[in-house]
Amino acid sequence: MINIQLSERQEKIIDIVKNDQPITGEAIARHLKLTRATLRPDLAILTMSGILDARPKVGYFYTGKTALSFVSEKIKKIKVSDVKSIPVAIDEETSLYDAIVTLFLEDVSSIFVTSDGYLTGVVSRKDFLKNAIGGMDLNMIPVGVIMTRMPNIITIAPEESVLNAAIKLIDHEVDCIPVVEEVEVNKKEKKYKVIGKVSKTTITRLFVELGESD
Amino acid sequence: MINIQLSERQEKIIDIVKNDQPITGEAIARHLKLTRATLRPDLAILTMSGILDARPKVGYFYTGKTALSFVSEKIKKIKVSDVKSIPVAIDEETSLYDAIVTLFLEDVSSIFVTSDGYLTGVVSRKDFLKNAIGGMDLNMIPVGVIMTRMPNIITIAPEESVLNAAIKLIDHEVDCIPVVEEVEVNKKEKKYKVIGKVSKTTITRLFVELGESD
Repeated sequence: MINIQLSERQEKIIDIVKNDQPITGEAIARHLKLTRATLRPDLAILTMSGILDARPKVGYFYTGKTALSFVSEKIKKIKVSDVKSIPVAIDEETSLYDAIVTLFLEDVSSIFVTSDGYLTGVVSRKDFLKNAIGGMDLNMIPVGVIMTRMPNIITIAPEESVLNAAIKLIDHEVDCIPVVEEVEVNKKEKKYKVIGKVSKTTITRLFVELGESD
Repeated sequence: MINIQLSERQEKIIDIVKNDQPITGEAIARHLKLTRATLRPDLAILTMSGILDARPKVGYFYTGKTALSFVSEKIKKIKVSDVKSIPVAIDEETSLYDAIVTLFLEDVSSIFVTSDGYLTGVVSRKDFLKNAIGGMDLNMIPVGVIMTRMPNIITIAPEESVLNAAIKLIDHEVDCIPVVEEVEVNKKEKKYKVIGKVSKTTITRLFVELGESD
């Protein structure tokens, strides 16, 4: 993929096609008082880029494609598995106090809670703070009591796009989503193994990478 | 700006130029056993895109430009002022308890602290949690005691790029940066008015916008 700054003449051609489509190359040339041969490179660029569509014996059409589509194309191709980071998980029986210590030691904003290795909950820094100011004994309460519990957890699969992960972060107002693999325990029950996470930090880091790539 | 998927012939032309630069259009045509006229649209696309550079009487050069440069160009152009959101600020004398309540009511991860309208500190959800588990009386301690204080605060100006803001968020491991305007109080002293904020949420939201733009 390459990118091109359109010339004034190419912008004019787009306008002509927008107004009079379908229109033949000869008719565009007449509009601009130029020969068909002179326009050949311009029309090649405009059709190759997908801005114009050419149909034999009919003429040129405007497709409506815009400049930003390359950025969005590029972003849509990045998969969760390309950017996911290592998750921090604790057991349901861990006390709030120990969970908070883990949060600080690992310097994360959310911790995943598992039971027998399967995802059962998520606790965020916000959940901890809410409970810490309540005046409870943090050593006595297990994390299982305050966590957000399955099936109320937003998850994402490794093969999904990172754009989808970002949309979930924004729509559900969470800082972090577990990346999970579905495991069929028996015919009735599905469980999830946590294999990574995508957080707003992941997205910010990716944004920096995209912005610095030259 | 538009984007183009290169044809096989155009890729071949790039290879020829890479190997034999500078090389004339006639020489490229001979390599491919085609006429100069047939190649005209291809060479136009490759020079317009900046992949090849043409110098009169010398020939074509390879510039080394790659596909990702458009994404990075687009990202670099977005300014902090284009995306900044509304900051939440409290006074230094506010108690930790009231500050935490504000944090929950406004649903933010950081609060800016001001004195006479000027930025003096920042407190994050992490700072609050650290102090909340310490067993102190949150009603008795003013936020000024625990906040990160100027000049140890990372700030950003509205005219800087949002890429710079994202780099600061990652490099300094913070969730949120105040957008500030410098005010010269007297010749010795500069103060800062908080006019906005950029957080990892801001960047994630922007990422979604770029990914969804078509």
